[in-house]
Amino acid sequence: MLDLRQHIAAAKQASLAAATLDTRIKDQALLAMADAIGASRAELQAANAEDLAAAARAGLAAPLRDRLALTDKVLDAMADGLRELAAQPDPVGEISELRRRPNGLLVGRMRIPLGVIAIIYESRPNVTVDAAALCLKAGNAAVLRGGSEAFHSNQALGRLMGDVLERLGLPPSLVTVIPTPERGAIAELLQLDDLIDLVIPRGGKELIRFVAERSRIPVIRHFEGVCHTYLDATADPSIAAPVVVNAKAQRPATCNATETLLIHADALDRCLLPVVEALVAAGVELRACERTRQALRERGFVSNQVVAAEPSDFGREFLDNILAVKIVADYAEAVAHIQAHGSSHTEAIITSDHATAMRFIRDIGSSTVIVNASTRFADGQQLGLGAEIGISTTKLHAFGPMGARELTTLKFVVFGEGQTRL
Amino acid sequence: MLDLRQHIAAAKQASLAAATLDTRIKDQALLAMADAIGASRAELQAANAEDLAAAARAGLAAPLRDRLALTDKVLDAMADGLRELAAQPDPVGEISELRRRPNGLLVGRMRIPLGVIAIIYESRPNVTVDAAALCLKAGNAAVLRGGSEAFHSNQALGRLMGDVLERLGLPPSLVTVIPTPERGAIAELLQLDDLIDLVIPRGGKELIRFVAERSRIPVIRHFEGVCHTYLDATADPSIAAPVVVNAKAQRPATCNATETLLIHADALDRCLLPVVEALVAAGVELRACERTRQALRERGFVSNQVVAAEPSDFGREFLDNILAVKIVADYAEAVAHIQAHGSSHTEAIITSDHATAMRFIRDIGSSTVIVNASTRFADGQQLGLGAEIGISTTKLHAFGPMGARELTTLKFVVFGEGQTRL
Repeated sequence: MLDLRQHIAAAKQASLAAATLDTRIKDQALLAMADAIGASRAELQAANAEDLAAAARAGLAAPLRDRLALTDKVLDAMADGLRELAAQPDPVGEISELRRRPNGLLVGRMRIPLGVIAIIYESRPNVTVDAAALCLKAGNAAVLRGGSEAFHSNQALGRLMGDVLERLGLPPSLVTVIPTPERGAIAELLQLDDLIDLVIPRGGKELIRFVAERSRIPVIRHFEGVCHTYLDATADPSIAAPVVVNAKAQRPATCNATETLLIHADALDRCLLPVVEALVAAGVELRACERTRQALRERGFVSNQVVAAEPSDFGREFLDNILAVKIVADYAEAVAHIQAHGSSHTEAIITSDHATAMRFIRDIGSSTVIVNASTRFADGQQLGLGAEIGISTTKLHAFGPMGARELTTLKFVVFGEGQTRL
Repeated sequence: MLDLRQHIAAAKQASLAAATLDTRIKDQALLAMADAIGASRAELQAANAEDLAAAARAGLAAPLRDRLALTDKVLDAMADGLRELAAQPDPVGEISELRRRPNGLLVGRMRIPLGVIAIIYESRPNVTVDAAALCLKAGNAAVLRGGSEAFHSNQALGRLMGDVLERLGLPPSLVTVIPTPERGAIAELLQLDDLIDLVIPRGGKELIRFVAERSRIPVIRHFEGVCHTYLDATADPSIAAPVVVNAKAQRPATCNATETLLIHADALDRCLLPVVEALVAAGVELRACERTRQALRERGFVSNQVVAAEPSDFGREFLDNILAVKIVADYAEAVAHIQAHGSSHTEAIITSDHATAMRFIRDIGSSTVIVNASTRFADGQQLGLGAEIGISTTKLHAFGPMGARELTTLKFVVFGEGQTRL
């Protein structure tokens, strides 16, 4: 039987060493992993072929099998990602806010790793390398548990990374791929709160709920992305139309795609037709409120892609080429609608009015708030974090896209000259 | 029957208003609360008298009754604390790291409140005001649940704060004191993860465990403070002796008091006698390793305050005038001992060597790491945070003493000019 605790205890021990590794050595390991992926293509694809064959036997749908495949293109992208990460700054070790207290103590904060981070994910085996690399960059040990359908691929990638670490004289337990496909191992892992500091589930709603409900360890959750784009009274139609189409239709199945369009009543004359025409041309189905349909009829617009919205269409994550549309009387109604139906993920306003833009930035509590651009920018790469380990929709520790820095914390450092407390 | 959910839903609603309150208005409320405490002394003390009488009838020990008492001095300190907090900077609204992306998007982070924070605490009623004020300063709604023995005092303080908020036109639900002393209400509260963003338990180990085990809401925990002070080979005895005495004996029952003294073997000749003599003179009992006792015998030091350490004395939180003492062969053994026996709270090094000081700061992963000063400085006021809502010994979200800023998070803000994603 697998002694899971022993594996994780080794990861914990390795994390103590990782916390003080020089940047140069961590980046050297990332580059060596990139090279090893290039050099081990044949072995990786042989292991992957076992998973693909099993998936075919099990009758897995074609899109799921596509996600599983370690093609040359996927392997190259993994290696490129490692090289990009190596080029980014090391978040660990920075001392900030160093200030002198009245008694002469110098007090500051130093950025340090979290320790051991477990990532639990679904089919794509590239997550195995991406997540391990981000953890390593931030000085953490990674414990990885992918989908059972990618078991052989993940094992091979884990061996590859372990070999590189060992060759460089680093503890191979910095990257631990759980060596069993059994689901019971996840439940067991989630009990080890004395060894693991953070759990990040990546995948569908059910996986995230499963992890959040069973974990004794803190979990960073990513729930739904019910994103809104709001056309303010002063929205410029030449911005509104392309941005709304991009926000909905560029990749409708992603969590940062817009699901509901809110339109200020005063924007109807200028914006309604150009925006609706562009959406319909892009193949989007509109689930429109009665007032929107009335306004379209008045303007002589007819399309069978415009249907009546059900109340449940507002606040719904379609993950498809479908958009709910609602006319609001004013700014306050738009904000109230978002507060009632949003998921704190990402909201955008299209406006020409500076005061309204700044008010929206302040009033909306979502993890990403955007002025005059597509909600699709709510993504670690796009926002300049480099690689992304996930998107948090809860506020504690991290809120929004998470990069390497979000896998660290701050401790206090104090420099004295013999001070004692009075 | 109390509808707890309805009370907390009102707090949630109030938190939306609180998130965008102007600094001036929040500070005005804090100052008005300070004035109200001065003006309502008689009512507050009458409510407190009910609690004190019940405590006397229940045979509560004198120190516990002392903690419960709202004396003039305690009320003045509460009012002073509110005025100091009003004078501090508002953490909310700051936009930082605003940078332009290659596509022209301007991306930054904005500090925002967490939302609704529940604080569950034990006897001292002053926590009711301190915690509510810190939450309000950071734009959060506070849900407060104190010890049942302080029920009437806490209700009176809650009414006072609610009246001030109402008078200023603010939602009184910004401060919600749970209106029942029943313990079942805590378990119920801990289930409301759709309404409450964070739970902070303040009190003994049992309370913290009770909350952590039952909560569906993220909890910031404060476990034991097993703090170490390490005398390096180059420790200056004129710093070591007063700092170690202060770290242990200034207030031995606090979580930042030193529990174990580690001494480098090369420091014995210069430091052992001055440090041990000062500790014994301060009334401290030393639980010393065999090598320490041998070294004291060789130096002709005899005291019945020096006894043999049990293995369990290392890693133990005495919370008393007792100190475990161990000689280590070198720096590495000191670090390994701290990693094995510490609680990640606070550790200090006494050294004259700069490189060793900087190495210790890097090697020790505790929430506060101190060079040449007393571990007793690990405290929000002392470190310059202003008021403190607790000390986190887990790394997620906050690590170490927590002030108003630790009751906030960062969201992304994005300013565009019509950008769409490619």
